[in-house]
Amino acid sequence: MRTSADYLESLRDGRVTYFEGRRVPDPTAEPLLAQAAQVVAAGYDQWYDPGANARNPLMTAPADEADLRARVPMLLASDFALDLSYQALMALSTAGAALSGVPGPWVERIKAYVEAAQQADDRVAVCVTDAKGDRSLPPGGQPDPDAYVRVVERRDDGVVIRGAKLHISGGSFAHDLLVMPTKAMKPGEEDYSVCAAVPVNAPGVSIVNTTFAPRHEDARTFPYSSRHHIPDGFVVFDDVFVPDERVFLDGQSRYAAVFAHNLGMWQRLGSLAFMAADADRMVGFAQLIAEANGLARVQHVTEKISELMIHATMVRAGLEAAIANCETTADGVCFPSELYTNAAKYHAAANAPMMTRHIHDIAGGSLVTAPSVADLENPEIGPAVRKYMTTGERADGEYRLRLFHALRDLTADAYGAWRLVTNMQGGGGLYAQRIVTRKHFDMAAAKDAALRYVGLEPPV
Amino acid sequence: MRTSADYLESLRDGRVTYFEGRRVPDPTAEPLLAQAAQVVAAGYDQWYDPGANARNPLMTAPADEADLRARVPMLLASDFALDLSYQALMALSTAGAALSGVPGPWVERIKAYVEAAQQADDRVAVCVTDAKGDRSLPPGGQPDPDAYVRVVERRDDGVVIRGAKLHISGGSFAHDLLVMPTKAMKPGEEDYSVCAAVPVNAPGVSIVNTTFAPRHEDARTFPYSSRHHIPDGFVVFDDVFVPDERVFLDGQSRYAAVFAHNLGMWQRLGSLAFMAADADRMVGFAQLIAEANGLARVQHVTEKISELMIHATMVRAGLEAAIANCETTADGVCFPSELYTNAAKYHAAANAPMMTRHIHDIAGGSLVTAPSVADLENPEIGPAVRKYMTTGERADGEYRLRLFHALRDLTADAYGAWRLVTNMQGGGGLYAQRIVTRKHFDMAAAKDAALRYVGLEPPV
Amino acid sequence: MRTSADYLESLRDGRVTYFEGRRVPDPTAEPLLAQAAQVVAAGYDQWYDPGANARNPLMTAPADEADLRARVPMLLASDFALDLSYQALMALSTAGAALSGVPGPWVERIKAYVEAAQQADDRVAVCVTDAKGDRSLPPGGQPDPDAYVRVVERRDDGVVIRGAKLHISGGSFAHDLLVMPTKAMKPGEEDYSVCAAVPVNAPGVSIVNTTFAPRHEDARTFPYSSRHHIPDGFVVFDDVFVPDERVFLDGQSRYAAVFAHNLGMWQRLGSLAFMAADADRMVGFAQLIAEANGLARVQHVTEKISELMIHATMVRAGLEAAIANCETTADGVCFPSELYTNAAKYHAAANAPMMTRHIHDIAGGSLVTAPSVADLENPEIGPAVRKYMTTGERADGEYRLRLFHALRDLTADAYGAWRLVTNMQGGGGLYAQRIVTRKHFDMAAAKDAALRYVGLEPPV
Amino acid sequence: MRTSADYLESLRDGRVTYFEGRRVPDPTAEPLLAQAAQVVAAGYDQWYDPGANARNPLMTAPADEADLRARVPMLLASDFALDLSYQALMALSTAGAALSGVPGPWVERIKAYVEAAQQADDRVAVCVTDAKGDRSLPPGGQPDPDAYVRVVERRDDGVVIRGAKLHISGGSFAHDLLVMPTKAMKPGEEDYSVCAAVPVNAPGVSIVNTTFAPRHEDARTFPYSSRHHIPDGFVVFDDVFVPDERVFLDGQSRYAAVFAHNLGMWQRLGSLAFMAADADRMVGFAQLIAEANGLARVQHVTEKISELMIHATMVRAGLEAAIANCETTADGVCFPSELYTNAAKYHAAANAPMMTRHIHDIAGGSLVTAPSVADLENPEIGPAVRKYMTTGERADGEYRLRLFHALRDLTADAYGAWRLVTNMQGGGGLYAQRIVTRKHFDMAAAKDAALRYVGLEPPV
Repeated sequence: MRTSADYLESLRDGRVTYFEGRRVPDPTAEPLLAQAAQVVAAGYDQWYDPGANARNPLMTAPADEADLRARVPMLLASDFALDLSYQALMALSTAGAALSGVPGPWVERIKAYVEAAQQADDRVAVCVTDAKGDRSLPPGGQPDPDAYVRVVERRDDGVVIRGAKLHISGGSFAHDLLVMPTKAMKPGEEDYSVCAAVPVNAPGVSIVNTTFAPRHEDARTFPYSSRHHIPDGFVVFDDVFVPDERVFLDGQSRYAAVFAHNLGMWQRLGSLAFMAADADRMVGFAQLIAEANGLARVQHVTEKISELMIHATMVRAGLEAAIANCETTADGVCFPSELYTNAAKYHAAANAPMMTRHIHDIAGGSLVTAPSVADLENPEIGPAVRKYMTTGERADGEYRLRLFHALRDLTADAYGAWRLVTNMQGGGGLYAQRIVTRKHFDMAAAKDAALRYVGLEPPV
Repeated sequence: MRTSADYLESLRDGRVTYFEGRRVPDPTAEPLLAQAAQVVAAGYDQWYDPGANARNPLMTAPADEADLRARVPMLLASDFALDLSYQALMALSTAGAALSGVPGPWVERIKAYVEAAQQADDRVAVCVTDAKGDRSLPPGGQPDPDAYVRVVERRDDGVVIRGAKLHISGGSFAHDLLVMPTKAMKPGEEDYSVCAAVPVNAPGVSIVNTTFAPRHEDARTFPYSSRHHIPDGFVVFDDVFVPDERVFLDGQSRYAAVFAHNLGMWQRLGSLAFMAADADRMVGFAQLIAEANGLARVQHVTEKISELMIHATMVRAGLEAAIANCETTADGVCFPSELYTNAAKYHAAANAPMMTRHIHDIAGGSLVTAPSVADLENPEIGPAVRKYMTTGERADGEYRLRLFHALRDLTADAYGAWRLVTNMQGGGGLYAQRIVTRKHFDMAAAKDAALRYVGLEPPV
Repeated sequence: MRTSADYLESLRDGRVTYFEGRRVPDPTAEPLLAQAAQVVAAGYDQWYDPGANARNPLMTAPADEADLRARVPMLLASDFALDLSYQALMALSTAGAALSGVPGPWVERIKAYVEAAQQADDRVAVCVTDAKGDRSLPPGGQPDPDAYVRVVERRDDGVVIRGAKLHISGGSFAHDLLVMPTKAMKPGEEDYSVCAAVPVNAPGVSIVNTTFAPRHEDARTFPYSSRHHIPDGFVVFDDVFVPDERVFLDGQSRYAAVFAHNLGMWQRLGSLAFMAADADRMVGFAQLIAEANGLARVQHVTEKISELMIHATMVRAGLEAAIANCETTADGVCFPSELYTNAAKYHAAANAPMMTRHIHDIAGGSLVTAPSVADLENPEIGPAVRKYMTTGERADGEYRLRLFHALRDLTADAYGAWRLVTNMQGGGGLYAQRIVTRKHFDMAAAKDAALRYVGLEPPV
Repeated sequence: MRTSADYLESLRDGRVTYFEGRRVPDPTAEPLLAQAAQVVAAGYDQWYDPGANARNPLMTAPADEADLRARVPMLLASDFALDLSYQALMALSTAGAALSGVPGPWVERIKAYVEAAQQADDRVAVCVTDAKGDRSLPPGGQPDPDAYVRVVERRDDGVVIRGAKLHISGGSFAHDLLVMPTKAMKPGEEDYSVCAAVPVNAPGVSIVNTTFAPRHEDARTFPYSSRHHIPDGFVVFDDVFVPDERVFLDGQSRYAAVFAHNLGMWQRLGSLAFMAADADRMVGFAQLIAEANGLARVQHVTEKISELMIHATMVRAGLEAAIANCETTADGVCFPSELYTNAAKYHAAANAPMMTRHIHDIAGGSLVTAPSVADLENPEIGPAVRKYMTTGERADGEYRLRLFHALRDLTADAYGAWRLVTNMQGGGGLYAQRIVTRKHFDMAAAKDAALRYVGLEPPV
């Protein structure tokens, strides 16, 4: 397995990354990006095992319900790059199972790649969303044919791809980019039916980074996001050659959706696990700020906290049901119920804004106007800030002030908004999640139960 | 075990029941009530086993998760009286476990009573809600001290109780009334701290029935409620003597809430199981009426059906999580997670009105204006009704008309409203369910997780 | 003007009506229908003026904002048949203005008909919704060409129409049926582009009635709907001849939608006025039942009542804004703002189920299980019912019991459900109302304001 | 009237302000604060009139409905400091009317102060929210008696006050701080019953500033908030002397709430006017981004935009109704209906999070991951960014990218969150607004209408 030092060194491989108009010579040294490298490096330390055949358990597939259940706390304790690599490898594994019997070398290549990535302890960033151009037109009907990533040349030993992939979390800090079609393709869209693993430093790959990292010089004002941030990448593939062994589908439009479909499932499981833990934490924060404000016994406040509790419990119920109703592929990969995973992810994301409103309602205006820790340290005005932020025995001024900062960071500034948007959009927006629910809900059984309940014969 | 004939005979025991101002000499012969007796009688046939020690499995306690899970379809396939008896006996069983170690003969009496009721195959109606008088005052502070059921006399061999219990489903069709305090009692409220099993025909017991049964002479217009209706009883206890062996608590105010608390859990499980099945059926009905209207491919309709699906899936997720996280009492009764049961029951009831709105929106005005089957049979106008209710090949006029009637019956007339109200109020209204959630949610863990997430020390 | 006696006599004109499979010889004598005739007759008494040229003010058009505002309480104080006639005549009047300049005799015929109907003090029922057949197909593409009302023959002196119209409130108690296309028509759908006034007793017209009237023999249990009910008609036009002077459009598909569009506006105004008054009453009922239960000072109850208040205030705000932003046609008919009328009607109907949930939550289970007034009068059990329904000084048992009955009647039985469904479906369901909102919202201004706000040039 | 140059000079008056731990020597020169001074200065230019008796119309009271209506666009076109001064002077004016007849010099002093402030063209910041300490305790019961601003000394010519006021928008850029009690006071809380106008540079006044101003060096990424930001002040009154003529209440606890009550009304009107305009703009933005994404004809998108339209229309209906139902004080100040203003403000704030969710859902992930304008200008990667952000003819890459930035600025970063929180908290949080609604809703009329509707006698 890789050490953290190996990892940091591995990022200095000539990769082409940009940030706010400038080429970034070394992503581990760029102020607003470098923390991501440190977080991923710490993840390597966390799981390191010197054994020759040692593997990070989160790089391997769960075999049964207990195994799947055990993954949840491991995922929550992991850095984002490991989380994403897990999603990538699990998606490839279950996609491989789904492609069993399909003509072509795909299944073998997938197995070999997954095995190699596990061995090398690589971090793999998933690339799904295309630029899409005019979304009212299909890939093959776009004014610019590159609006969706496509094969522009087929050589003896590989393919050349062109296009862009958007919202690529941590792309600049991964080793490979797992490119897959963003949607189902139709006959005639063979060139768009490509799945491949591209090294981040492959010639022709460029990444434009954006970040929600706080720019405030005092990290104490953003206690979470100053330590945990991750850039999103706008990844450009400018005629990038990919050798055959890294191509997992090419030209069979019928199977184009298999990869994104499987990835969506693992992404939504990851989102759901995060949102379940997060919803519990938000109950905790609501109670903490209510207590710090002296409002914990005020009924309209306890009612709002009750709604947060019910929300958190329902999200967790979805996660529990998804695991309790897991299934297993022919080659032994255990995966969560798609119906429960998807419905609960929808429920969590759709209701998150109202739950955030409750937090804001309970916290009050100081959520966005609390002075800084530096003000507290100023010898002239600091004592007054402390005095007036204190609420009796329940909370001293500094603790309460820091609690407001934490809540602003998580719910009322760049990171909080990024989280709300990406939790909703991850694995497809709300509409996409409704489509997935429709696909997995047993409508025939529901119709039959309805008719039997009232003694009606089904229509012929 | 009892046969259906035994059961029907057992109701002619001198019980005092009223309906719309009149004394009902025989509840099995009163037009708007009698169908309930037939439904319960059919339940006896359904489970009958001639073995000497045979017992209805729904009269016994589940021992583990698999057992508890198996109860759900059995409950759904049972008549209401058996369902209620199950709740009563399970509540007594888990309450008995909770009273272990409490001074007094309660635990032994409970075990003996449960055993006897199982043996006799009795139907037991649960009596919780008191008249309550002025709800802003406690039981001991009411202008009329009988506003809550209380012991008015203690004799050598038993107690005499007075008061009323409201909303007693099927009281007139049960054998026993299991009376328990509706809420926690305080010191000084000892006389109100009474739990006892009272035979329906005990001197002093009177029941005033109300019903949602349709009064329309043509049962085809109300295909469900004409076959499945159950009266609610307003039960008056006018100085009713209860012998000692049927008294399960008397005078220990500290334990008054144990019974209703345990009952609430089993009631909510029953409600939740029903609402999960019902939510699935409602998805089915929505799809059926959309298809019958020729609207199944219209997007705003599919979106509404998707919301119904997500609702149904979340309710079922709550049921799944409640079972997957079950617990077991010291004497071996397996019971569902109270947190998940309660939160999911709340979620189901709170969102039911909006789900019903979707059904009404998809169905259209014919939901409440569709002609009757009799109109269809009229030789003069029937052909026109059929012609204009038909929507091409998708649905012939009679099928569609009957579908509208079914939906009106379930969602837009007396039974539908009764169901909406009782699903919400059963086991306590929405507010009561929030209180229960607060009791079971692990707030300490949530607060700790919140503080650790942002690196804050807890306040001292 | 007509007297009530004239009116009742006028209904015995040979009209062909059915009810639950039977031909109704005299609608004023059919038990579950006759109350409607009495209500309409009382309306004639209410407005009667013996002057030769006297006219019911609600049969004439408002001329300005003050006039329009004064119509609201008049509408609310009127019986449904007058309300519907008002909608019909106002719709014809504003439709006539919209048809100004269109070739054909339409505008003159409309004016003459409106004048005559005012003079005769006729009641006019509006007929919009067609049978529609398979809703995924247009009128011209139906398997049965009669799925939408159409002209099947054109004669020298009139047209012959065939088809059916659904949900025709009070059709059996009106004089004329104002038939109009339910939607926009396209070239090729000329035969469906017909608007005409048909006497209820015209040969070929048949009406199948349905009703939400309570069938309970004791009217006291349904204090509102036993006095105010109105049948809905399923109206069949079996080759009905309509003379030219009563035909207001025939064959010009381009103008087919004008009538329903104008009617929708007046219908939504009527709905909105009713819902504003109703929302206020529901606040009142919520407070009354809270007080009767002794819950008026319990905070979760006051919070629910506050939400009802805010809802009621917003619905009324919509009505106020619709009137304050009224417009006037070229020939002087003042009509409300379509944007505000429609948005507020949507808002009121969409939120009504949740507001009803609050009522049910506050009232408690007695809403559906309260004994009857007859039980109260029973000498044996009546005193106990009274005793246990009483809540101290706040509410005696009979008053509280009657309040529960009133609430059940209005929100939890046939009438309540009918009202919920028809308020939502009237003037088109929620989806139709969104379409109308989109039509009237000033999107160009909104886009311009958005771009200016952030200093962006509009896209070319 | 003041010129902009006069204004900027007037801020260099020795005021004591802090920012992030440092004393700010000149607020017009502090990078993250100075833009506020420029915005206010531009407002002086906008309204400047050299006439000797000229007055800014927004410093004077509306006299009737037309006048009040005309204020709305003027308010929306004004800078925040003028908006706040308007609220302050109007609140003083209507409070003065409410204090008519109260013993003491208050009414005269108020009139004189308002007159002088109009003449001097001063900017007045309103100071309401106290530190509050432990909110479960009243002002007089706090561990620290300074938790609410109070009079600590009464001198012959004035009073000395101590305490802090929070969330004071633009305090550092005003001339006066209008201090008033945050809530009703009780007997014994006379020292807390103080209202006074304090010059910002009075000895003992210190202001700690916080800001949502973007710290990103490229203003183009935050097109709105980089140009329009305003610091919030945490204002400390450390034994500040206020001369008698600037004291508008002292010691009469019975009238303590009059000022905040009147201010709340004008604040909510200001909020409501802003939110009505903002809701329209959000409809515009939703449509623009849908068009730029090529999604404008996708039905689930048009449905979300329809919901935004209905929301915007209902908020505006509230504003229209508030103005149409305005009232006038005895001395001629016209003010909006409190019921409509408050209910609509509640409705707007309560639903804002869901409306924002729709925007995020329509925009997609690029809302938070769109590259910067600087990336677009980079000669190496810029062309690719432009190419892949372009969506055919509908939107070129730069326009679309700038639209994403605008939406992030307004809804998904520091300013957007600040706006959401302050719109909800301004004039009191959601709970406070429910209390105000309860105060103004005509409950007696609602109860009476309810009882009459069902023919019930009111309870005695």
